[in-house]
Amino acid sequence: MSEAESKAESELPTIYVGKKPLMNYVIAAMTQFMSQGADKIRVVARGRAISRAVDVAEVLRTRYLPGIVDVESVKIGTDQIQNPQNPERIDRVSTIEIVIIKKRELIPAPKSEE
Amino acid sequence: MSEAESKAESELPTIYVGKKPLMNYVIAAMTQFMSQGADKIRVVARGRAISRAVDVAEVLRTRYLPGIVDVESVKIGTDQIQNPQNPERIDRVSTIEIVIIKKRELIPAPKSEE
Repeated sequence: MSEAESKAESELPTIYVGKKPLMNYVIAAMTQFMSQGADKIRVVARGRAISRAVDVAEVLRTRYLPGIVDVESVKIGTDQIQNPQNPERIDRVSTIEIVIIKKRELIPAPKSEE
Repeated sequence: MSEAESKAESELPTIYVGKKPLMNYVIAAMTQFMSQGADKIRVVARGRAISRAVDVAEVLRTRYLPGIVDVESVKIGTDQIQNPQNPERIDRVSTIEIVIIKKRELIPAPKSEE
């Protein structure tokens, strides 16, 4: 939660969650862990997409990579954005940052039928 | 994040965020801090209401009680719910729990006798 930690985390591979279907982001995250060699990623979102960012993390943790990844930290905050219609007005929007960490290596799935 | 901590936190005054307007929950939370004497509350939500729970915490922290409350912890998880249409099916829904702590007293609250 320190400033230094935040700076380090902003360098992590980051999935920006928006309005696309959930699986787009889940696949993007799995690609980071499985073929990009990431040990840690950030999943971030703003406004209504916050719920979907939590879904991305939870689907990874419980369904696609159970026992392999875990949620390391969750932070919430507020961004201030200049209103595009009225530049004198500042809109606030809530944000979330979820850091997901790889706990152990993935094992290449054997293609044997069991 | 320990089991003991989770148990203690489930005893805190809890605001369940759903589909009502944001301000309903903000007022409920402020009431806890200002007239119920709470030092810590939980704001919890499921599914799409997760974004609104983050808004509740952020509006309290940045707008209504700045410098007075802070976010102590944010946890995400998954609840399993029996599908009401098909009891053999288990639906999963993401959850959030935000613990908000009072850092210092508001206006010296007159002590109401209990």
